[in-house]
Amino acid sequence: MIKDKKFLIVGLGLLGGSIAMGLKKMNHEVYAIDIDEKAIQYALAHNIILEGSTSLDPDLIGKADVILSGLYPSMIVDWINENQKYMKPHTLITDVTGVKGPIVSKIQSLLREDLEFIGAHPMAGKEVSGIQNADPSIFLPANLILTPTEKNTQEAIDFMREVGIELRFNRIVELSVEEHDEMIGYLSQLTHVIAVSLMNANDSTHLAEYTGDSFRDLTRIAKINENLWTELFLMNKENLIREISCFVDEVNDFKEALENEDCEKMKQKFVTSTKRRKYFDC
Amino acid sequence: MIKDKKFLIVGLGLLGGSIAMGLKKMNHEVYAIDIDEKAIQYALAHNIILEGSTSLDPDLIGKADVILSGLYPSMIVDWINENQKYMKPHTLITDVTGVKGPIVSKIQSLLREDLEFIGAHPMAGKEVSGIQNADPSIFLPANLILTPTEKNTQEAIDFMREVGIELRFNRIVELSVEEHDEMIGYLSQLTHVIAVSLMNANDSTHLAEYTGDSFRDLTRIAKINENLWTELFLMNKENLIREISCFVDEVNDFKEALENEDCEKMKQKFVTSTKRRKYFDC
Repeated sequence: MIKDKKFLIVGLGLLGGSIAMGLKKMNHEVYAIDIDEKAIQYALAHNIILEGSTSLDPDLIGKADVILSGLYPSMIVDWINENQKYMKPHTLITDVTGVKGPIVSKIQSLLREDLEFIGAHPMAGKEVSGIQNADPSIFLPANLILTPTEKNTQEAIDFMREVGIELRFNRIVELSVEEHDEMIGYLSQLTHVIAVSLMNANDSTHLAEYTGDSFRDLTRIAKINENLWTELFLMNKENLIREISCFVDEVNDFKEALENEDCEKMKQKFVTSTKRRKYFDC
Repeated sequence: MIKDKKFLIVGLGLLGGSIAMGLKKMNHEVYAIDIDEKAIQYALAHNIILEGSTSLDPDLIGKADVILSGLYPSMIVDWINENQKYMKPHTLITDVTGVKGPIVSKIQSLLREDLEFIGAHPMAGKEVSGIQNADPSIFLPANLILTPTEKNTQEAIDFMREVGIELRFNRIVELSVEEHDEMIGYLSQLTHVIAVSLMNANDSTHLAEYTGDSFRDLTRIAKINENLWTELFLMNKENLIREISCFVDEVNDFKEALENEDCEKMKQKFVTSTKRRKYFDC
């Protein structure tokens, strides 16, 4: 059922571009809209898309069966609201946004009755941005998380699973919007706060030559797109603040054990972390 | 000048064992003492050592030109103090201990006049221990840090550099004892506190299936030898407590920016961390 569908990618950045390339490899018809002329030209020159536009082309929007938003989190709700009038009945709309709470219910409640929006989050990325860095192989080790609600049809969920398989995601998982945002606050956003804070706590650039793998691994994600992540953090503010507090309490508890030279407590913490971390080996 | 030297490894664990294997590969004569019969049998069976003992064999100690301690940090001072009577004049003693302050000056001041101790820290390891997991290729990407003092001869420093080259370390660097312990508090020990605390802040094992590379990279070192690291942390207590405080202040500063929705401040932190992290790319 995925065959013969026309895909329109709105926002040809790293993720939108990687998805476009992945769909193209599977011989789908892919179109794109991006305000950046260079992104469209790049996609045309590399045969990633059949047709593209830097303006809101009603014809392009109207012929799509599936519209995938690769827009910044702050733009997606307004974009769909303003352009749904051009969409043909039964168009399926989806996205790549890393936080779901402030987006999914807003879109689903403003949407025309004959359109459907389903939230999707490809947990993949790079430390660089733009379609010039796009690469569908970033999906190979990654999870595609779908966040369907009671407004979604089983057909749309099944369709998105097919898309995930064609894009060669490692796993395709369904979570509620709330579960997704809580999980992402801990596993992804908190880890970014930690990496950024570790880099910023000390001007350690003169120490680069002594650095081992542990520090490099831990701070790799401190290279970060400041505009995107500021938006994502604000959208998940409550979850993230709770996770940061929880983490800081744990670090302070460790510090207190060290101050008191409480060896048993320190060892217990090492034993617990070792045991828990083993669940994450793959 | 390294040729024809007899090396005695005291403590055939992961590091002592890896060094023994690396020296053996370069055709050096390697001997070992370890209280664990299994470790000695393993080393003999795999042709890593020529001879080994589970007891304090005065003959074995007395024929060594170089004695390398792979003992736990808490044991090294006493071991040298009690066994220096068996060592022949001009024996060079070195170690692998991850903290230098409480060790180097103690050993150098109790040592016989005709012996020499030089501190060394191979910044290499694994999440598993024991000679059964030893592998000299762990030194390939790693730094060997030497911490010579005014008690050391240029000859000993040059000799240790030769050993480092034969063991194929990526870089061989000299630091003062104080510089070493400060650097290690930030780059290594603080990162371990962070990884352990991140694992312990939440019982996240049910989230393993959603985990991306960032979380895995950040928590890899949360699998940790609780006895060794408790000793190392206590030995570098002041430096580590200062680094933890500095890091917690930075995380709390980030949290405050998020609470106040201070986008400019958050972006500035992302820009700084991105810029700093680029110095660590190699």
